[in-house]
Amino acid sequence: MNLQGLFHISEIPYAYGVDDETLFIKIRVAAGDVKNATLYYKDRYEPSDEFTSIPMQKTSSTSLFDFYGTNVRVKEGRLRYFFELEDAEGKKVYLNEKGIFETAPRSTGQFQYPYVHKEELYKPLLWTRDAIVYQIFPDRFCNGDRSNDPQKTKYWGGQVDSNSFFGGDIRGIINHIDYLNDLGVTLIYLTPIFESTSNHKYNTTNYFEIDEHFGSKDDLKELVSACHDRGMRIVLDAVFNHSGYDFFAFEDVRQNGDNSQYVNWFYINNDDEKVFNYRTFANDIRDMPKLNLSNPETRKYFLKVAQYWIEEFDIDGWRLDVADEVVHSFWKEMRTCVKAIKEDAILIGEVMHEGKLFLKGDEFDSLMNYPFREACLDFFAYGNIDSQAFIDRIILRKEGLLKDINSQMLNLLDSHDTSRILSVCDGDVNKVMLATVFQFTTEGIPYIYYGDEVGLSGGGDPQCRKCMVWNQEDQNLALLNHYKKLIAIRKHNRALTSGDFSVEYAKDKALAYKRSGDDDEVLVLINNSSQKHFFDLEVTGELIDLYSDEQVTFHNGLELDSMSFRIIAIK
Amino acid sequence: MNLQGLFHISEIPYAYGVDDETLFIKIRVAAGDVKNATLYYKDRYEPSDEFTSIPMQKTSSTSLFDFYGTNVRVKEGRLRYFFELEDAEGKKVYLNEKGIFETAPRSTGQFQYPYVHKEELYKPLLWTRDAIVYQIFPDRFCNGDRSNDPQKTKYWGGQVDSNSFFGGDIRGIINHIDYLNDLGVTLIYLTPIFESTSNHKYNTTNYFEIDEHFGSKDDLKELVSACHDRGMRIVLDAVFNHSGYDFFAFEDVRQNGDNSQYVNWFYINNDDEKVFNYRTFANDIRDMPKLNLSNPETRKYFLKVAQYWIEEFDIDGWRLDVADEVVHSFWKEMRTCVKAIKEDAILIGEVMHEGKLFLKGDEFDSLMNYPFREACLDFFAYGNIDSQAFIDRIILRKEGLLKDINSQMLNLLDSHDTSRILSVCDGDVNKVMLATVFQFTTEGIPYIYYGDEVGLSGGGDPQCRKCMVWNQEDQNLALLNHYKKLIAIRKHNRALTSGDFSVEYAKDKALAYKRSGDDDEVLVLINNSSQKHFFDLEVTGELIDLYSDEQVTFHNGLELDSMSFRIIAIK
Repeated sequence: MNLQGLFHISEIPYAYGVDDETLFIKIRVAAGDVKNATLYYKDRYEPSDEFTSIPMQKTSSTSLFDFYGTNVRVKEGRLRYFFELEDAEGKKVYLNEKGIFETAPRSTGQFQYPYVHKEELYKPLLWTRDAIVYQIFPDRFCNGDRSNDPQKTKYWGGQVDSNSFFGGDIRGIINHIDYLNDLGVTLIYLTPIFESTSNHKYNTTNYFEIDEHFGSKDDLKELVSACHDRGMRIVLDAVFNHSGYDFFAFEDVRQNGDNSQYVNWFYINNDDEKVFNYRTFANDIRDMPKLNLSNPETRKYFLKVAQYWIEEFDIDGWRLDVADEVVHSFWKEMRTCVKAIKEDAILIGEVMHEGKLFLKGDEFDSLMNYPFREACLDFFAYGNIDSQAFIDRIILRKEGLLKDINSQMLNLLDSHDTSRILSVCDGDVNKVMLATVFQFTTEGIPYIYYGDEVGLSGGGDPQCRKCMVWNQEDQNLALLNHYKKLIAIRKHNRALTSGDFSVEYAKDKALAYKRSGDDDEVLVLINNSSQKHFFDLEVTGELIDLYSDEQVTFHNGLELDSMSFRIIAIK
Repeated sequence: MNLQGLFHISEIPYAYGVDDETLFIKIRVAAGDVKNATLYYKDRYEPSDEFTSIPMQKTSSTSLFDFYGTNVRVKEGRLRYFFELEDAEGKKVYLNEKGIFETAPRSTGQFQYPYVHKEELYKPLLWTRDAIVYQIFPDRFCNGDRSNDPQKTKYWGGQVDSNSFFGGDIRGIINHIDYLNDLGVTLIYLTPIFESTSNHKYNTTNYFEIDEHFGSKDDLKELVSACHDRGMRIVLDAVFNHSGYDFFAFEDVRQNGDNSQYVNWFYINNDDEKVFNYRTFANDIRDMPKLNLSNPETRKYFLKVAQYWIEEFDIDGWRLDVADEVVHSFWKEMRTCVKAIKEDAILIGEVMHEGKLFLKGDEFDSLMNYPFREACLDFFAYGNIDSQAFIDRIILRKEGLLKDINSQMLNLLDSHDTSRILSVCDGDVNKVMLATVFQFTTEGIPYIYYGDEVGLSGGGDPQCRKCMVWNQEDQNLALLNHYKKLIAIRKHNRALTSGDFSVEYAKDKALAYKRSGDDDEVLVLINNSSQKHFFDLEVTGELIDLYSDEQVTFHNGLELDSMSFRIIAIK
């Protein structure tokens, strides 16, 4: 047995409370090393050396590792436990806090999970289970009200540069709410809409006002109602890492320097008296002074912002900009504030890397899942990894998270900060189709960046922020139909939204995985190669391709054309 | 290379801020696999794919793993990084968030440490560096005032049972403060002294009063002053997991049931109307009803307790009883409260297992280090592990912690909750001497449970709570002298309090390790076997045994008698 492969800590994601008296316990072992993994446990106040044993199930595998997990019930969650790992030859090793042993270590040194507190249990947002997210960059979605257009508004669909304005607004979104509803969207995410000088509005002037070019507070109320009437939800963008240059507090500091009562709202550097210097977002972006959220007054102000738009406008949560550069204690406090008003509000962090520190259950409910995007690009767009390497990355991500949070991750293929998926695929719609098949049939929330569904293209910012195409003749209707179909399939097959995920086949560029729900089962086959592929896989039962409605029969396997897929319901 | 041995997360203890712009980054690899470990890093907003490289140092090793670490400076702590690991044959692998690669992954997927916030930096308690802790169980230390003795007080030194009272009190501690000072103690820890019906007082009746049998608030003030006058510190025991049965709030609940305004201060279970049922500490210990510290009112009350004794009596921190069964958010808030009043106050958790979740820098400064005790018992008392297995456990513990917290751990060999070290060693003083040599020369704070220094014996509770022996004829003066010597050696050799720790030799039951300070170096040799042992180790320079004051010379090694040690200063 590869002893260095054994890994467990009594912390998320390897140990955590599921309910008052139930814990989930997981262990990682080297791939293929272990035939049976067993958890030995007892109440930590049980005086005898008797332990109860429970077999652990393999939850997933990568090339390097297998993961085994089990739920276990014990009074008040007060757990004492160790692991028994048996290899194919029947040789056993034992793991506890002290190390690895050849005989069961029944006395001291067991792992302990001391207590499960209700307060510390992560409460999943059950409404996310069948969610479909749609991201809108308001200036570019639809110009519904020409009377609020900024000066120098360009004609719709014109050339985009960093400073272009196109007049998109809240009215435009309201006008297309049924388009989104018909598409199957359930959660709309708007990039910032508060008063700001730029088209993207990530440099906020006033956190308590809607930007006049986007509309009024009444417009927002109408939009939220329009969403809620249709069973849809909506989140806004909380840009709390930095303000805009014209934010009242920063203006005060600019005018009054050290004498400003807001000087500690920012990170002002007075080393050089001649230069007004301060920390900013990214590389000295002077228009975005960094906010000091460790300062209690600043914190109070932004918690008020977070509460205000939920209390007064009934929005359904926040997407948190540059979330990972903001101090953790602020997010923990914001979570408490927000959930006190609206318990099922969602908090989505913008974290472009793995960001697991924000996903311990006391900060965010979800992240924009950029590592998911990167894995999909490597496999589907660039084709520079095989299916095993692809699935390794998906599993690695999954096994790093609370189970409930894994199924709430926003699985995006692009956003306003990246090249469009179609452009990354060099315009190859087939690649986009395969990538979206995976996106809509795997664990996590599928995420559409406005226009992707009709074939909008564009490289990095600002080309990924082109105007939405509403003219049907200019839309890729085949692609739109594909999105609609995938959404419908996901909605009508619970296995796809909440079933277990298991890899059935990974060879060269071919991949098959199963989603297993309580009452249904779906098998997905993807041949992501330029050659046809024979899936050496036997599947029986009544098999229906949910995408083509055809019946499917395996003959000691199934052949798929190049760049094709099957989404098969197993009855 | 054993790829399953590679491990890194962008979290404590593998990545954390050391100061504003400095991070400590660590990686774990399989033992002996890696010749060179290199960190490649850049500011995370550096647009180019150019990384700076910095060699990592091996920080420690176990049988299974080597650990490599380095500090790295980058603006605002905004780090993007990956690892290069080179084996003896020059073959290299690279590790980043995405996985393991054979070529340097310069574009996407790097590990990221997004930002270092001052607020999140752990502030070490520098005064702990040369601390020696002495734990006192007040009823058993010294009866300094007979006028406050409880009824049925037994004669000093009489037979101990669970309900005995011996009349020990605060006056008794004051009377022996110079004894403790002469011994070299710098931090006194008193088990509970607040009003309570028991001799141990872990069932508190009134958190704002000193138990009358222990003395008055004036006595406590005098004791704190006596400590501070001598440069000593003192901490009290915060029993916040549960109250006593007679605590006013619980009394109110007992009388008024569901109508009590304090009903949510506890976990009352009304499932069976005929029985008054509630959660307690451990196995239904009815005298210790569990407190609900998730309830804001209860929380407020106990934060006031925590503040009161610091503000009014100037105590230097708290030892936190049953700390791991209390909700994390309470400890985080208590930390903020306490540190706001007294920044260098110490918070010491009673956690009997590894308890790393409480040591992320935002809860406790230290734990009662029971895993240290268990390793020492296995090696020194029971002799059931060899020196390599022993050191594996010491290193495993160390590498799981922030560096600053590792050096603040309370390294105990026993306490009021365990058998005395002398009794665990079956009365063999030589074994105690070897164990204490390790205790006083390794990283962390040496900890004396009252009376250990004079040879007090006793098995589990209540026998480990015998009366202190003050009659010199009944004290083991050789052992006392040994403790004094070890304390003096530790105090006069900075390498022992703050130098690096490195294992130089581990074979059979023999162990040698070095402590390397900025200006001094100490080599410790321990032969923990019943045979003499030849340490196959070459050491040059002027070598003085700090314990015997003899000069030491290595002749291609050094032979040590059975059960003996050397503490050698290398000049």
